[in-house]
Amino acid sequence: MPFISERGKKIPASPIRKLVPFADAAKKRGVKVYHLNIGQPDIKTPEIAIEAIQNTKLKVIEYSPSNGFLSYRQKLASYYKSVGIEVNENEMIITTGGSEAVLFAFLSCINPGEEVIIPEPYYANYNGFAIQTGVVVKPIVSSIKNDFALPAIEEFEKIITPKTRGIMICNPNNPTGYLYSKEELEKLAILIKKYDLYLFADEVYREFCYDGEKHFSAMNLKGLEQNVILLDSVSKRYSMCGVRIGVVISHNCDVINTAMRFAQARLCPPTFGQIASEAAIDTSKEYFTEVYNEYIERRNFMVNELNKMHGVYCPMPKGAFYAVASFPVDNADKFCEWLLTSFNYNNQTLMMAPASGFYSNPLLGANECRLAYVLKIDDLRNAMQVLAEALKVYPGKIIDKKEKNTEFKIAPKP
Amino acid sequence: MPFISERGKKIPASPIRKLVPFADAAKKRGVKVYHLNIGQPDIKTPEIAIEAIQNTKLKVIEYSPSNGFLSYRQKLASYYKSVGIEVNENEMIITTGGSEAVLFAFLSCINPGEEVIIPEPYYANYNGFAIQTGVVVKPIVSSIKNDFALPAIEEFEKIITPKTRGIMICNPNNPTGYLYSKEELEKLAILIKKYDLYLFADEVYREFCYDGEKHFSAMNLKGLEQNVILLDSVSKRYSMCGVRIGVVISHNCDVINTAMRFAQARLCPPTFGQIASEAAIDTSKEYFTEVYNEYIERRNFMVNELNKMHGVYCPMPKGAFYAVASFPVDNADKFCEWLLTSFNYNNQTLMMAPASGFYSNPLLGANECRLAYVLKIDDLRNAMQVLAEALKVYPGKIIDKKEKNTEFKIAPKP
Repeated sequence: MPFISERGKKIPASPIRKLVPFADAAKKRGVKVYHLNIGQPDIKTPEIAIEAIQNTKLKVIEYSPSNGFLSYRQKLASYYKSVGIEVNENEMIITTGGSEAVLFAFLSCINPGEEVIIPEPYYANYNGFAIQTGVVVKPIVSSIKNDFALPAIEEFEKIITPKTRGIMICNPNNPTGYLYSKEELEKLAILIKKYDLYLFADEVYREFCYDGEKHFSAMNLKGLEQNVILLDSVSKRYSMCGVRIGVVISHNCDVINTAMRFAQARLCPPTFGQIASEAAIDTSKEYFTEVYNEYIERRNFMVNELNKMHGVYCPMPKGAFYAVASFPVDNADKFCEWLLTSFNYNNQTLMMAPASGFYSNPLLGANECRLAYVLKIDDLRNAMQVLAEALKVYPGKIIDKKEKNTEFKIAPKP
Repeated sequence: MPFISERGKKIPASPIRKLVPFADAAKKRGVKVYHLNIGQPDIKTPEIAIEAIQNTKLKVIEYSPSNGFLSYRQKLASYYKSVGIEVNENEMIITTGGSEAVLFAFLSCINPGEEVIIPEPYYANYNGFAIQTGVVVKPIVSSIKNDFALPAIEEFEKIITPKTRGIMICNPNNPTGYLYSKEELEKLAILIKKYDLYLFADEVYREFCYDGEKHFSAMNLKGLEQNVILLDSVSKRYSMCGVRIGVVISHNCDVINTAMRFAQARLCPPTFGQIASEAAIDTSKEYFTEVYNEYIERRNFMVNELNKMHGVYCPMPKGAFYAVASFPVDNADKFCEWLLTSFNYNNQTLMMAPASGFYSNPLLGANECRLAYVLKIDDLRNAMQVLAEALKVYPGKIIDKKEKNTEFKIAPKP
């Protein structure tokens, strides 16, 4: 039997999806599973997008241009203008989800063996794209003790080597919900400029900023026009993760021309997804206001409930729809699995994403989980009640660090 | 300005799409362009597939499972059963087009720097995936002089090295239209077994076999259950290239489990494409009979017309909807560009794909072009007339090899 490739052995199962078989088994036993593991909102997709699909007049579902339909790119440029980002239709390649935007960016900008610095915890699938492309992720710890703030610039500079090609940020952040300020980004910009690096900016949660905070796009950093690569997606903005439409954007035309050749190799992004995405740009402001209010309520409820639980700490996220919380448990991976295999409360349980998969060093996240507040408030209420009950009886609970010989440290309440 | 990656510099523009800007300019000048460059059929997508999209009741366009909807995988298994291939729903990963199937197969089975043997000319985009994944393509020439038959097995064996991980075939073949026989594949199987290689079998044109020839799938090669990786797509079968749905299939569960982790990194294949693909499996037999008859007529017409032109030779393809022809021209790339920039006949011209991009050594295809007979017969008639007229006046025409100091050799008429 021929062997599996080294990268095939190395690529990790998604921490967001690897527990799915246990969840499926729980459901088969008749247990209701609340899915806080995945950023799959229950928010309705804008009707205008679905109607565009239903009303298609196409008789032949043809290839689109490799960089996406011109009409969509033009309209997308107008969307960016409306959020204060100036780009034109030739400075973008429409991709199959934000995933492919990351892939094209890494392929175009970084040689195998070269490095990209990413504050951790970070979106777990960056690891998948790094392994696919031979890119080495150099993590830099942002800690729950500092509520996941961007590490000091000196910390970044310490790990820059001749192999460093770029810095990657996700803003607002998945998984922490942290929102980087303009000031933080401007500090980062100095470093980017000094070492002539790429700045890969994943801004798919741009619309989800709370408490009056405003999103500042890396595209608006002065003097970095040739350095910034914007990675984006319609998945979260319009709650249509399944259409698989993203985009890679840059004023650096060498990068876009290069990404275009990778795009040609895979022919084109999905036609129906582009139709839905183009139509979705006309989504009413009311839709976003409703969604915003819904998420604020969910966030406040969930984070408050978490912090009420003894030994649990969850910083208040300023953006996206995730939170990372630390738990008084021996091992968050085991805890999440136990919730699905060995626990239920009134025939209900919940699924979270163990944070270990969001760190390069899994030990760092050993007692943390990511929770996506993507369910309606009644479901969240049940999920939090299940979680509180679970923590009372979980066999691996750490009651007091003095009692057990462990490194675990309960984070102080804010 | 930060630099572009080496692979970014290396990845070629698609030979099928690189002349698009010239075609666009011709259209702007009011010239009608017949597109024989791209395998984009004008055949209607089955109505049953489009209706499934139009009738969607989805309110939230959610992620699907990373390996695709279970209902689709189950139904797809029944399609394969109907064409004599036994697989179950767990032996497949639904991909974003056949493109991603190739990508996942290379990523899962081959290390960077290791080799895959491919008879050339081959589907140009294999190069793109090889460069993305660091895989080295070792070509083996199948020549127009032998009507592109599979090279002798000894020729394959000669270039096997300790770094060889697999052999890749496209059957029926894009770009040549050659259909490999059961006997040819069984000879290849001996080699695959002897050296314990992977056999990557791209069978996306399975439905397009002519003259009473039957398709023999690599999946039915005895004793190769752990070696064969089937790469497939719905794009051509149902004339819906834009839905971007393919599949990677193997009885080798290590390969499928590995591909699954790559699939998780990019989350899922497109939802609407899966809906259309699942519905399309119920397409009536009449649809395929009509399509078959249409292609037979187109093929016979085009190939006969080509062979009537002085100095042109085109073997009769037994499958797919492409043909590679040799032309009495100095350079096929120049000729194709000239057709778009400097020639028209009654305000019409045509676009072909220069074959150089389908060879590892571009010189081998220097006087060949790939033509896709994907247009209705009236359009094909016009296109062939344009081509015949063009060859009369093309400044780089080779009238007689003795007249010009060139290696060009007019292939003998069959």
